[in-house]
Amino acid sequence: MFTGLSAFPLTPLRDGAVDEAAFTNLVARLATARVDSITALGSTGSYAYLTRGERARVARLAVEHAADVPVIIGVGALRTEHVLELVEDAHEAGASGVLLAPLSYQALTADDVYGLYEDVTRALAVPLVVYDNPGTTHFTFTDDLYQAIAALPHVASLKIPGVPADPARAAIRVAQLRDLLPAGTALGVSGDAFGATGLNAGCDSWYSVIGGTLPRPALDITRAAQAGDHAGATSQSECLAPLWDLFARHGSLRVTAAVAEHLGLAPPHSLPLPIRGLAAADRADVVEVCTKLRLTV
Amino acid sequence: MFTGLSAFPLTPLRDGAVDEAAFTNLVARLATARVDSITALGSTGSYAYLTRGERARVARLAVEHAADVPVIIGVGALRTEHVLELVEDAHEAGASGVLLAPLSYQALTADDVYGLYEDVTRALAVPLVVYDNPGTTHFTFTDDLYQAIAALPHVASLKIPGVPADPARAAIRVAQLRDLLPAGTALGVSGDAFGATGLNAGCDSWYSVIGGTLPRPALDITRAAQAGDHAGATSQSECLAPLWDLFARHGSLRVTAAVAEHLGLAPPHSLPLPIRGLAAADRADVVEVCTKLRLTV
Repeated sequence: MFTGLSAFPLTPLRDGAVDEAAFTNLVARLATARVDSITALGSTGSYAYLTRGERARVARLAVEHAADVPVIIGVGALRTEHVLELVEDAHEAGASGVLLAPLSYQALTADDVYGLYEDVTRALAVPLVVYDNPGTTHFTFTDDLYQAIAALPHVASLKIPGVPADPARAAIRVAQLRDLLPAGTALGVSGDAFGATGLNAGCDSWYSVIGGTLPRPALDITRAAQAGDHAGATSQSECLAPLWDLFARHGSLRVTAAVAEHLGLAPPHSLPLPIRGLAAADRADVVEVCTKLRLTV
Repeated sequence: MFTGLSAFPLTPLRDGAVDEAAFTNLVARLATARVDSITALGSTGSYAYLTRGERARVARLAVEHAADVPVIIGVGALRTEHVLELVEDAHEAGASGVLLAPLSYQALTADDVYGLYEDVTRALAVPLVVYDNPGTTHFTFTDDLYQAIAALPHVASLKIPGVPADPARAAIRVAQLRDLLPAGTALGVSGDAFGATGLNAGCDSWYSVIGGTLPRPALDITRAAQAGDHAGATSQSECLAPLWDLFARHGSLRVTAAVAEHLGLAPPHSLPLPIRGLAAADRADVVEVCTKLRLTV
């Protein structure tokens, strides 16, 4: 479950409510494309904006429509107690794993974050992915904290925020993490522009934003890297550079939502307010890139 | 309502639930001390960690126990729709005003934030305080955005995150904001170490963390500044320097919770997990400072 492509579907909203038809269609597309796992309610799935009830429903829908593809469910929340409720709901939905980022409002200390993972792993019946995303959580993990948390029961994978762009340096970083972490801890790269470099450098998986909406190009990169065709993975990722540029400019969520809205996979204004999504001119750029790169599946 | 001392009480938890007796006692102390307003469910009141039900209950208790002191209620949430629900609850509780920070998970644009205030002010029946707290929201207001939002209906006050430490530069900054904002927009300083300097520089109010737990020293500073005794306000604030140092080191919330726990105003471990509160050695420093400064009321 923690190797290959983990695809992160959007949770599109329509008039402020989850668009269940759009969401289940996205999940079914991923199952048909044969991604290796589906991570629903990740940052791309707007988990932080949804109520417990909405999240429980989305988790159930994801498992129901994923066929035999394992589903990982994001369970992050600001308060430990709420994370534990979400873990319960993920278990009930039949999730194969959970993803947990240390959300913060007040800045958290390393001890706070270790305690969070300690409390949550104690309640777990499925494997956990440690989600390091300083751009949204504003918490920065140290290697020491990675090591301490990875030693907790049920911790199966570490989702890291990118790797060095230079392939040699990326490989050194991945080897360094391997030395640090218990054997068997799966390393997953995120930040889509780093997907190919991360896989080529020895990461087990790519936790992919674009893979949740456009599984085909993400799978092509993943399968090339897995087959040892590093040059092929790199060149396919380089073909998507105009998309990575848009991600860098506007954030991956707003761009991916615009792609999904353009392709009819999500209704207009599918992101939770106050996030307004891209302005008209920026949407036109997205459409141009989709057309130029023939991004449809 | 938007002049003088606005005191921010903690919302102490006991075994993961709001300790209503401790909270109402804190509010009643503030009413007895004659603070100028009480802002419940601010950052100090842990609003971001509480459920809608808990927040509605805390808002009602605050108004009930505040005697005739006006109560402002924090209504921030990640999703606009949830803010609107909280506004409804604040109205029903009898709040005299609301406080709104642009909480973020995905980084917000200026347009997103303007849209948030536009949507919320449209639903308001009471005045609103714009809450600029980049340390927790990770959003940075520009002066242009201040200006645009301050022009919206119901926007009555701007809570700014400190002023320059130098009194002359602080006065220039406050004058600059006065020029920028509609006449009558009340300016409130926050960051307790800046309280005296902000009031001396012409701010209308001090939105105070420590004032919510220890109203006496905060009121002394405020009344001195209001009477034009700038030197007195400054020297009283300087007496509290050991406390401001602890705030700088650990954050005002953890230190204030430790003060309240030490004084028996909150039960042990009164902060919402995953925030563990101060370690034993740091608590000892807090107790030492409280004793040395005779901080009890």
